[in-house]
Amino acid sequence: MLNIRIEKTQNPKPIPGEDNPLKFGTIFTDHMFIMNYETGKGWHDPRIVEYQPIVLEPSAMVFHYGQEMFEGLKAYRTDEGNVLLFRPDKNAERAMNTNRRICIPEIPAEDFVQAVKELVAVDNAWIPTRPGTSLYIRPFIIATDPFLGVRPSDTYQFIVICSPVGAYYPEGLNPVKIWIEDDYVRAVKGGIGEAKTGGNYVASLAAQVKAHDEGYSQVLWLDGVERKYIEEVGAMNIFFKINGTVVTPKLNGSILPGVTRNSVIELCKHWGLPVEERKVSVDELVEAAKTGALEECWGSGTAAVISPVGHLRFEDNVMQIKDGGIGEVSQKLYDTITGIQLGKVKDEFGWTVQVK
Amino acid sequence: MLNIRIEKTQNPKPIPGEDNPLKFGTIFTDHMFIMNYETGKGWHDPRIVEYQPIVLEPSAMVFHYGQEMFEGLKAYRTDEGNVLLFRPDKNAERAMNTNRRICIPEIPAEDFVQAVKELVAVDNAWIPTRPGTSLYIRPFIIATDPFLGVRPSDTYQFIVICSPVGAYYPEGLNPVKIWIEDDYVRAVKGGIGEAKTGGNYVASLAAQVKAHDEGYSQVLWLDGVERKYIEEVGAMNIFFKINGTVVTPKLNGSILPGVTRNSVIELCKHWGLPVEERKVSVDELVEAAKTGALEECWGSGTAAVISPVGHLRFEDNVMQIKDGGIGEVSQKLYDTITGIQLGKVKDEFGWTVQVK
Repeated sequence: MLNIRIEKTQNPKPIPGEDNPLKFGTIFTDHMFIMNYETGKGWHDPRIVEYQPIVLEPSAMVFHYGQEMFEGLKAYRTDEGNVLLFRPDKNAERAMNTNRRICIPEIPAEDFVQAVKELVAVDNAWIPTRPGTSLYIRPFIIATDPFLGVRPSDTYQFIVICSPVGAYYPEGLNPVKIWIEDDYVRAVKGGIGEAKTGGNYVASLAAQVKAHDEGYSQVLWLDGVERKYIEEVGAMNIFFKINGTVVTPKLNGSILPGVTRNSVIELCKHWGLPVEERKVSVDELVEAAKTGALEECWGSGTAAVISPVGHLRFEDNVMQIKDGGIGEVSQKLYDTITGIQLGKVKDEFGWTVQVK
Repeated sequence: MLNIRIEKTQNPKPIPGEDNPLKFGTIFTDHMFIMNYETGKGWHDPRIVEYQPIVLEPSAMVFHYGQEMFEGLKAYRTDEGNVLLFRPDKNAERAMNTNRRICIPEIPAEDFVQAVKELVAVDNAWIPTRPGTSLYIRPFIIATDPFLGVRPSDTYQFIVICSPVGAYYPEGLNPVKIWIEDDYVRAVKGGIGEAKTGGNYVASLAAQVKAHDEGYSQVLWLDGVERKYIEEVGAMNIFFKINGTVVTPKLNGSILPGVTRNSVIELCKHWGLPVEERKVSVDELVEAAKTGALEECWGSGTAAVISPVGHLRFEDNVMQIKDGGIGEVSQKLYDTITGIQLGKVKDEFGWTVQVK
């Protein structure tokens, strides 16, 4: 249990109105959580202070060797005015796994969740209320040693910031077009693909720019070894409904283990749908699209929750799914998960955590 | 040609004496070069100012998505008191390639070199004089947009800092022990391995810690696809002399194209040694070590220049090379390249550039 010092700002900012849509990740709340690490001293000085710039030496390791990690989760305001977090323990657990992979000292899961909860409580007035809106929470850790040698840093900062965000689909669920990439690679087994760290995202930029130029909103990655098995979308995991079975790539070391991915699998099983976590080749998809066996496709992630995919392209193969419309399972998953997040659907799984 | 504004510090720091060895990358000179980028405005406001902290919003993209690149080169002081750079045009060219791969706006090679030269000229009193010492120069670029969406940043800072460094081998060339890694992977074809960006370094930390724990100083990486071909050492490229031929892994998209690597190849060819850039399997090495065909092994990089390798380990195979001593070609390369860098050996290749 952390003993968090709270220094409230003397200069609160105006909370943005909700008449205009809130653009993702551009506006930040009044406060931030900070905790420092130093070898020999451990994690120390947890505090909630005014939202403020980070001041680092130019030689700080994070600028040179990418030793940085992050998480993303959301707080929701219910109709009754309660504040709910969705499975923050899963983010805390994944943060520990990321930290282990990239040699950042671990933070106990309960401390991670406590930091998030206390910060959200302090800035709870910033949680928007309109349907589909939420408070996006971004915990992250950066390596701060002022040293140009390559080795794990001896000092770190763990920081949490919050940003009120608008509805991902202001006009209701809308299927996206996805580009299956066969030139660039995001990650490979033995690498850092299952860790939530900057290196995976910088690796994705060039393909993302290419896909956008072709009129696609996101990139679906293939494995880095055989270049034939589906991995993930970078900001989302991917699901297919093939001949009545829900199929998603098995976690293999280069796929990020999404919290929403896990929730989708649990819900589908709970509903009695057959679920397979296994290798899915792009050839299987092309074939299933031809025969009509590919009944649905959707992405799962914290930002969009569920993102129906209406259109996949791999080289010259264009796969139209549900005639570009929304599948029944996609819609049901979206309604159920957002319903649980907003306290409107009974939480049978104990996924929501109330912030007092 | 940049019009660089120079604002000299009013508070110069004491320049460290050379009686104690200078530890790599810990002490920085009085000044730094900074230039900003903004979409629509391009690179602008090049300036040399007092060495000072970097102040960024917590949401700055470099902290989250790893969009950062760096270079490394050295300035040397000759016995005549001249200041020489070693092939800065090659660093500028590689910087352009890195920038292209990770969607950072390019800096013209001549501007890159000019920034380095003017900064070294301003801080030239910091270049140490003892044998083996130099001024290490670290140009780097960081993405600074205060935005949590994943896309290339619209704003950047290009910064150059300098650090006086001691001799890499204070007691003369000393062979190192290297661990060939078969579990973790640094990079894969299609990824960012040939770019000088943080993501490749963070990916290397866990294996480096493991190798250190086993008593090895560095990790030699295998390819991420077949896990059998030699790639590079992370801080160095690798060379073998097998049956009289100098062999080094061919650049394949996941190996960093080292400036010293290129210089070694050119020198060996100039000396009439057969040189092969090709795939080298770890099995070939194990076999060559057994038969005695593996005559030498060395690494090449900016920090060490040439680092003889006396001992390689792959799984249970321990390969002792030259009975752990230094090979003739390794020694000759070290003497020649450091000789050129210090103006003691005739520069037949036009590799050195004088700073006025």
